[in-house]
Amino acid sequence: MTVTEQPPAGVGAAYHEIQQFYARQMQLLDDGRVDEWAATFAPQGVFAANAHPEPTKGREAIAAAAGAAHGQLAAAGIRRRHWLGMVAVDGQDGQDGQDGTKARARCYALVFEIPRGGQAALRLSTLCEDELERGPQGWLVTHRAVTRDDLV
Amino acid sequence: MTVTEQPPAGVGAAYHEIQQFYARQMQLLDDGRVDEWAATFAPQGVFAANAHPEPTKGREAIAAAAGAAHGQLAAAGIRRRHWLGMVAVDGQDGQDGQDGTKARARCYALVFEIPRGGQAALRLSTLCEDELERGPQGWLVTHRAVTRDDLV
Amino acid sequence: MTVTEQPPAGVGAAYHEIQQFYARQMQLLDDGRVDEWAATFAPQGVFAANAHPEPTKGREAIAAAAGAAHGQLAAAGIRRRHWLGMVAVDGQDGQDGQDGTKARARCYALVFEIPRGGQAALRLSTLCEDELERGPQGWLVTHRAVTRDDLV
Repeated sequence: MTVTEQPPAGVGAAYHEIQQFYARQMQLLDDGRVDEWAATFAPQGVFAANAHPEPTKGREAIAAAAGAAHGQLAAAGIRRRHWLGMVAVDGQDGQDGQDGTKARARCYALVFEIPRGGQAALRLSTLCEDELERGPQGWLVTHRAVTRDDLV
Repeated sequence: MTVTEQPPAGVGAAYHEIQQFYARQMQLLDDGRVDEWAATFAPQGVFAANAHPEPTKGREAIAAAAGAAHGQLAAAGIRRRHWLGMVAVDGQDGQDGQDGTKARARCYALVFEIPRGGQAALRLSTLCEDELERGPQGWLVTHRAVTRDDLV
Repeated sequence: MTVTEQPPAGVGAAYHEIQQFYARQMQLLDDGRVDEWAATFAPQGVFAANAHPEPTKGREAIAAAAGAAHGQLAAAGIRRRHWLGMVAVDGQDGQDGQDGTKARARCYALVFEIPRGGQAALRLSTLCEDELERGPQGWLVTHRAVTRDDLV
């Protein structure tokens, strides 16, 4: 029986940063602030999902996709709340000689929907696998893969 | 496209403290320990909600309101579990010359209900916006505004 | 009205470690990696639950129980996602002269189920009370008590 691997000590310092990055990122998405949402991805960042035929690439496309989805929901009187949780971070600090910091995160994401005047409900459960990079302004997602549990 | 603002580095130190403060606070509320729940607010703390006609002000009133709600649920054999998540904290350290620390937090809160012998269910989704102050015994809520997503 | 007790300052350093330990532990369980899941318990670790007639003792038994449950769900095309949250940690550092670190954690746990091609749903809400020990490879659960809210 193997011992569970745990991250090296230095990586722990980034953990609360990434937790809070995710909190802000989800709030931007749910509030329809789609340019700021897209700016949490690297300029050439990728958003891939098993529910989409093709990955979305770059901030402009990521903002456009989020804007379209948010507009449809708003027109239907529905608010979405994305919850990320069970966040596990693996750091790759110092592995590539860059002055930034890279990390990988694997977490769960739930999507709740709340119709105006109606009952809040769980809509989706997903797995979210991120590659992250820390630049001068903070963390950015360079690659995200979202896997809907119901489609696996 | 703007870069997402992230909090200054010093603020991060408070992040896990506030996460755990919220965990303890929700457990006190759900366990019906209403005096201890009320003591997580400042003595003149305010609890405002878009579901209530008037804000509740001060520990005594906050304890009384929680006690009434908990008593009704207990009589009906229903347990509530409050989950706070997606916690984003903005600090205001050193802005006012006080020796305490102030912060603002914006997070999501879900309310689950579990009837005795029955099926757990999501009841409400809300946005929780707090003003917090750190005194000698730890963090206290000075002002909380809870917005039910279904009533917006 | 009493002031809410908060943990001593030194304990805070362990908080994000335990949060991440839980994230990894739940992912191992949900992925059916049952030997690695069992290795997050101490060799003589105990898993007790108010839904089980007897506690499960030791890694071999803990792995076997998880494997049986996972196999049944997989055969039915159902994925489970365990979410731990509202984690409150009390440390007992330096109380027993050992070089390891002990802690107690009290948190909530939700179990979601997602049938292949179907709708994700909340299945259970529980309280999880852990005794933890930090060894050379990281945290281990020495005793876990899971209380289903619907059975209380």
